[in-house]
Amino acid sequence: MKFASLAELAAACCDLPAGDAAAAAAVAARDANLTKPAGSLGRLEEAVAWLARWQGRNPPRLDRVDVLVFAGNHGVTAQGVSAYPAAVTAQMVANFAAGGAAINQLARIAAAGLSVLPLSLDRPTADLTVASAMSEQEFLAAVEIGFEAVRPEADLVCLGEMGIGNTTAAGAIAAALFGGGGERWAGRGTGVDDTGLARKRAVIDRTLARHAALLADPLAAAAAFGGRELAAILGATLAARRGRIPVLFDGFVCTAAVAPLAKLHPGALHHAMAAHVSAEAGHRLLLEGLGLRPLLDLDMRLGEGSGAAVAVLLLRAALACHLGMATFAQAGVAEKSLD
Amino acid sequence: MKFASLAELAAACCDLPAGDAAAAAAVAARDANLTKPAGSLGRLEEAVAWLARWQGRNPPRLDRVDVLVFAGNHGVTAQGVSAYPAAVTAQMVANFAAGGAAINQLARIAAAGLSVLPLSLDRPTADLTVASAMSEQEFLAAVEIGFEAVRPEADLVCLGEMGIGNTTAAGAIAAALFGGGGERWAGRGTGVDDTGLARKRAVIDRTLARHAALLADPLAAAAAFGGRELAAILGATLAARRGRIPVLFDGFVCTAAVAPLAKLHPGALHHAMAAHVSAEAGHRLLLEGLGLRPLLDLDMRLGEGSGAAVAVLLLRAALACHLGMATFAQAGVAEKSLD
Repeated sequence: MKFASLAELAAACCDLPAGDAAAAAAVAARDANLTKPAGSLGRLEEAVAWLARWQGRNPPRLDRVDVLVFAGNHGVTAQGVSAYPAAVTAQMVANFAAGGAAINQLARIAAAGLSVLPLSLDRPTADLTVASAMSEQEFLAAVEIGFEAVRPEADLVCLGEMGIGNTTAAGAIAAALFGGGGERWAGRGTGVDDTGLARKRAVIDRTLARHAALLADPLAAAAAFGGRELAAILGATLAARRGRIPVLFDGFVCTAAVAPLAKLHPGALHHAMAAHVSAEAGHRLLLEGLGLRPLLDLDMRLGEGSGAAVAVLLLRAALACHLGMATFAQAGVAEKSLD
Repeated sequence: MKFASLAELAAACCDLPAGDAAAAAAVAARDANLTKPAGSLGRLEEAVAWLARWQGRNPPRLDRVDVLVFAGNHGVTAQGVSAYPAAVTAQMVANFAAGGAAINQLARIAAAGLSVLPLSLDRPTADLTVASAMSEQEFLAAVEIGFEAVRPEADLVCLGEMGIGNTTAAGAIAAALFGGGGERWAGRGTGVDDTGLARKRAVIDRTLARHAALLADPLAAAAAFGGRELAAILGATLAARRGRIPVLFDGFVCTAAVAPLAKLHPGALHHAMAAHVSAEAGHRLLLEGLGLRPLLDLDMRLGEGSGAAVAVLLLRAALACHLGMATFAQAGVAEKSLD
């Protein structure tokens, strides 16, 4: 889907299908008859109903799970905000292609397909401390790439990213949307030391001052702070909603990437689940700001969609219980006697 | 292994092999070279080192994962502490045999073998409010069954339980070991209402008063409060330690079952990981008392080893990353540049 302007994109972000309440209710009705105390599988039960609601299908299925990893480069790396050189983005994309990264192993074990989409890596976004990271058209082009990357036949889409410098961009977006500055939103990313962290905080503060005029416009902030991979994640999340595909999104950067959607429309992320809360400072706070409870809390902070792929395992476990368990009647098990 | 007396069992519980620090260090050394920021897989990395330490093997393996579910019946059900009739224990054991329970689906998806061991279901333990749930010899016999259930060739053992009434026994053990009474340690179990919860609290308080003389002796308390399935879980955990097999244990009841080991020897549970924190009131508190951080927090409260089986999925993901990822040198990825 093409968007001619931020205004057109904003309109599309507010024109969203509702979930299928009947499919979710059918899941809950079967769950109530399965041989377990009501609700005793907790979030696993909720997850199956959520899948049904957003797939519009009872029972839901997880036959085609896609992990999409978007990669981008960031001019802000010139400010010394990352522990790794910018060249690592392309090197890691090659590592994804060769099968050597964490996400390769995790996608395999989750029985998910993996697609890596590098976005103009040889053309980093502008340094957000001195300019807009992307022009409106560059931003919209990246959103479109993400939008088109979602296969209509997918049962679940997992979103991840790779981009040296992108926790700085994500921190700036979080600050724009939820207030506070570098102190609140800068973390150690791939592992900067105290000096690097101080530099990163100052970069976010300078960025917010430089772009103060557009902080109230979620999409304008996303364009100004970048990067292309975050824009693509926003586009993919929007496409999934419009195509009735549930989404698992990964850590801090992905959360910042989809957060503008929630600011534009309060229910825009109902089809998207936070796979995990990462160890990156600010992620927990950002999830709280969005009212989202992550499935996992494992001190991960790798990106690449790694937390999302691990969370797929939980959804598969949940669905296996829902589909495979006997009912009280089938098993000849007595139901609750006291109430 | 046979134990002639509580004293002999207590001695065995204090004669425990240490972990293999070299195997754990070898895992950490490889992890430091894999293509990710150091430590960025968080608890997944820790879990692989933990498996190596307690298997005494680098790399560790997960080829033979056993889920052991012990089932027992409890005389305390006469006090109306459960939402389900006591007959459900045997009915659920039949459901396990037929493949219709949650743990059947979860063990399958975790590629784990499932063994269900019913312990004299037709002979419930005595009502702990009026007598000792088990005699010393009954307790030791159940411990032995658990001990012998652990195959020496297992790579990982997951422990679970089934027993209508056993959250009351578990609450009494937790109270004996960590202080507090029914108010602190009684939860809704399979789903008692407010009246049932009040009854359960009172039952725990009466139990503590009735057995006040033995609360300071962890094994005596475990024998007095029951049940057989908890005793077997204690025995299996001890056998695993002595056989160099890591353990994942399930929810509140399992945690109460293994807690006496930690009271007898501070490092007795280092080879055992809390798979999850359940929604049962008191479980989080009990894990905190033991200094254990659970892997998962999914509001589950089913038992059957269900949380442990789900956690196996995380260990498999962790091991897949450790074994399958490329090193920086292999992938031609630049290492950290700033520090």
